[in-house]
Amino acid sequence: MTELKHTSRDRVRRAYERLSRNKNPEAWISIRSLESAEEEALRVDEELQHGRVLPLAGTVFAVKDNIDVAHFETTAGYPPAAYMPDQSAVAVARLEAAGAICIGKTNLDQFATGLVGTRSPYGAARSVIDPDRISGGSSSGSAVAVADGTVDFSLGTDTAGSGRVPAAYNGIIGIKPSLGLISSVGLVPAVRPFDTISVFANCLGLATQAIQVMGGEEMPNFLQNARLAAPLAPVIGIPVDANLESANEQARNALTTAAAKLKDSGATLVTVDIASLLDAAQLLYGSALIAERTVAFGKRVLSEYPLDPSVEKVVDQGRGYSATDYIESRLELDRLKSDAELLLQGFDALLIPTVGFHPTFHEVADDPMIVNTRIGTFTNFLNVLQMSGIAVPVPNAEAKNYGVTIVTGDREDAVGYDLAARLLEQDWELTEAVGCELGVFGAHLRGMPLNGELLELGARYITDVSIAPHYRMVDLGTSPPKPGIEYAPDAQNSIEGELWRLNPLALAKFIGGLAEPMTVGPLELNDGRSILGFGFRGGGSELRDISQFRRWDTYLNAVSND
Amino acid sequence: MTELKHTSRDRVRRAYERLSRNKNPEAWISIRSLESAEEEALRVDEELQHGRVLPLAGTVFAVKDNIDVAHFETTAGYPPAAYMPDQSAVAVARLEAAGAICIGKTNLDQFATGLVGTRSPYGAARSVIDPDRISGGSSSGSAVAVADGTVDFSLGTDTAGSGRVPAAYNGIIGIKPSLGLISSVGLVPAVRPFDTISVFANCLGLATQAIQVMGGEEMPNFLQNARLAAPLAPVIGIPVDANLESANEQARNALTTAAAKLKDSGATLVTVDIASLLDAAQLLYGSALIAERTVAFGKRVLSEYPLDPSVEKVVDQGRGYSATDYIESRLELDRLKSDAELLLQGFDALLIPTVGFHPTFHEVADDPMIVNTRIGTFTNFLNVLQMSGIAVPVPNAEAKNYGVTIVTGDREDAVGYDLAARLLEQDWELTEAVGCELGVFGAHLRGMPLNGELLELGARYITDVSIAPHYRMVDLGTSPPKPGIEYAPDAQNSIEGELWRLNPLALAKFIGGLAEPMTVGPLELNDGRSILGFGFRGGGSELRDISQFRRWDTYLNAVSND
Repeated sequence: MTELKHTSRDRVRRAYERLSRNKNPEAWISIRSLESAEEEALRVDEELQHGRVLPLAGTVFAVKDNIDVAHFETTAGYPPAAYMPDQSAVAVARLEAAGAICIGKTNLDQFATGLVGTRSPYGAARSVIDPDRISGGSSSGSAVAVADGTVDFSLGTDTAGSGRVPAAYNGIIGIKPSLGLISSVGLVPAVRPFDTISVFANCLGLATQAIQVMGGEEMPNFLQNARLAAPLAPVIGIPVDANLESANEQARNALTTAAAKLKDSGATLVTVDIASLLDAAQLLYGSALIAERTVAFGKRVLSEYPLDPSVEKVVDQGRGYSATDYIESRLELDRLKSDAELLLQGFDALLIPTVGFHPTFHEVADDPMIVNTRIGTFTNFLNVLQMSGIAVPVPNAEAKNYGVTIVTGDREDAVGYDLAARLLEQDWELTEAVGCELGVFGAHLRGMPLNGELLELGARYITDVSIAPHYRMVDLGTSPPKPGIEYAPDAQNSIEGELWRLNPLALAKFIGGLAEPMTVGPLELNDGRSILGFGFRGGGSELRDISQFRRWDTYLNAVSND
Repeated sequence: MTELKHTSRDRVRRAYERLSRNKNPEAWISIRSLESAEEEALRVDEELQHGRVLPLAGTVFAVKDNIDVAHFETTAGYPPAAYMPDQSAVAVARLEAAGAICIGKTNLDQFATGLVGTRSPYGAARSVIDPDRISGGSSSGSAVAVADGTVDFSLGTDTAGSGRVPAAYNGIIGIKPSLGLISSVGLVPAVRPFDTISVFANCLGLATQAIQVMGGEEMPNFLQNARLAAPLAPVIGIPVDANLESANEQARNALTTAAAKLKDSGATLVTVDIASLLDAAQLLYGSALIAERTVAFGKRVLSEYPLDPSVEKVVDQGRGYSATDYIESRLELDRLKSDAELLLQGFDALLIPTVGFHPTFHEVADDPMIVNTRIGTFTNFLNVLQMSGIAVPVPNAEAKNYGVTIVTGDREDAVGYDLAARLLEQDWELTEAVGCELGVFGAHLRGMPLNGELLELGARYITDVSIAPHYRMVDLGTSPPKPGIEYAPDAQNSIEGELWRLNPLALAKFIGGLAEPMTVGPLELNDGRSILGFGFRGGGSELRDISQFRRWDTYLNAVSND
């Protein structure tokens, strides 16, 4: 059961107090009434008292105004086409069902088209770190609402960097999950093949939890072939100097500081020329793919209410392409994806600047299109090439309004979170819904000779476990040395081991490779739960019973001291 | 090791004898020299003698001339753009590596655009069953070369029915595999998002073997979530009368006969209105998706060498759409796919006519576009909606130039093959590369109370097995009754059970659901192989040793007779 530091109601009240002296009104488009929010908070507090598990109880969040939330109009930054949705987006409904309370809808670049945060009739949000500079966009308000402490987390969207640029400019975490991990039902589309809901938070544990709650019941299947953990010694690619031409000193400093930190944590950093990845960005605005935006919101536009001039240009541009142009662009995209896969083989992740510079409002106003394009230099390609990424602030970096992004492949989200955890020195937890459990007691324990087999399969260490005292442990006398766990109803000792989790394909592979005399089967834990764990085929009454040592490593130490 | 009825060289010679008195010269575009084919056949025969396993040794095949085969020009039915490929298509190279010998390239509707077989400068192939009528297309020559007995199997392609229509008109089997099961490297594209290589053969075992050989090393991963067998009592959808308006008496007769046969084999047939599926066909030629063809071969066309007039019309039509039209068509396609998934929930397959009528050459010449469209009524939607299908002749149907198609979902190919096997009373074998093995000895045996758990997971019975005499079998006294297989080095009897195969996700799920005291682990078979099989956690010296019965069912029978 969740142990709250505060009640949900307390948290809601605190959020509204902060809103009442709000220094960032441009962050919000609509705010829920305190009464309604308190009412829901009370319901959450009651449900907790009745023993319900609500992993996000006690948190408040905000939602970018291109995602449906029941009882709020969705404007997408273009009020003439605002509509009242029948229901909340699937992702929002899941957060609410987990106890999080939505307090309002946030400002954005119109139709999520922009990385600046200035293309909105509701005003331009400012960076909380340097108010003369832009908040970044398009998820401007959602980032600011987290950065100024009003909400615990918020939802943005990310089609070209909208979930990462404002994270950097406001010194917070921004997660762009793998495409398809989170349902896009209830999201106003921008570029359908690339759109995803994203999350902002200060805390890695909360950000990843929100992602996983939104992933819902489809997530285990979505991640059925995914690694659930980063390797102990990952290989991380870092751009060559030529790729960083457009990055200023602060951006480079953030990158260097982050790289040093990851290296200290055991990673190998290898420079790699990612020019071909960065070039992929041009497909977003410089090819027929731009017609996706024309289709997505062109029809919503009412002729008597003009769009933001920059957004208008984009919509018009999409009208100039033919069907054959579109198909050619898609083929080019397929080629770039294959090339990128080849380039990144052998890398567990890339480490790149999230942004290369941080413009003032004046700079944006002077040349809105060019500045916008430049901002996307290090973000666009992730969407185009179907990668996942987590933008994080860099502890001890000089400037707080810069950051780095850990880029991982499709469905390698957990690998990215692990690397972010090492960089931020924060933890995160994989939900129990993902992967299959496996209890290990001997050569597969951490630090033991066969542990690498688990790590190789992307398995994740979860916790230490002790099994019910109905099993004995024997020394199988194998090479490498292994214990055997054997059912013994009258056993006295509770054997200790580790619980790991790995994806079902990895589990099938692992079990298909079991060597005699090992087996797997259900084991009862001391807490009454049953897990799948290692046993052996039995038939070894002459084997040495080492149950009194309780742990395999304790026994091995004792033997080596003999 | 493969036991051949004839040498590869004998088979090659027989093919060339038949070619020398060829009644269907329009089937071929180019034929390999006898010398070259014999040389390769000798190499295959020698390799077999050296003990190499070549599953397709002793077979000859033909390849549609839009698929690359080294040393043959690829014309795609438009000689001005013919080219000499650097190497064979991936699929062809795999067939050759498995011992099959390609003897030539076959005729087709130009650029695989057509279902008639008349749109080729190399002449129009005729139905081997009724020479006044068309062979069907676009894979016209490949179907005829199998149907007239020249080759054992052949490759076609299937974008809208080209791998099924000519199968029906010539009374043979035509398999359209799931999109992506077979590499399309080396295939001249028609509509890239729908194109697949297909197979024709007279024999189900050979057709499915060719498919699996071409599937190659990527296939196990492709099918990682696939059912590997049809249920014992499948639910098969059959169109309502209104869907069959365009089908003549012969087509309906084939459908009725096939339905009766499948019902006799244990299937439940349920009528379902598939009008929405049939309507999906219009996206192929009546939407911006047609621009795929314009891109695929528009640029290959030389202005001084005109295309077939019907093909020309298609290419031109694709030039008239905008990028936004294309995107709208793709969105419509996505909607139709979702609707189809909903409609077909609960069905294991659909049974439909492959063709509704069989036109004469005159009828096609009178109105080539309309007749072509009508032919595709029951084939187009499979490609558009990403399904798999197997077109088969119907034993005992009145007309031999009609047939039925068993339609299955994406990656449900094995389910379709099983139903085809029941209809044709032929066998097929799943390659060992696909799925994970599991040995069962008790309640999961065929006919036993828990066998349904395996069937539910799409597991496939492979063979009976007997394990090495190092194990004893005990009665665990559980409910339902189960035996336990336990390591016992001095055991006297060889316990017998069954080997099943299931996909890795199903295996992980199955093992995650193991109930105490069951385990799984490696078991040694009598032939020395090791398989993953059921054991139990041991610790039951007081359990009754029933090893002398060798089989669990034998023991149960003995007990019930006590």
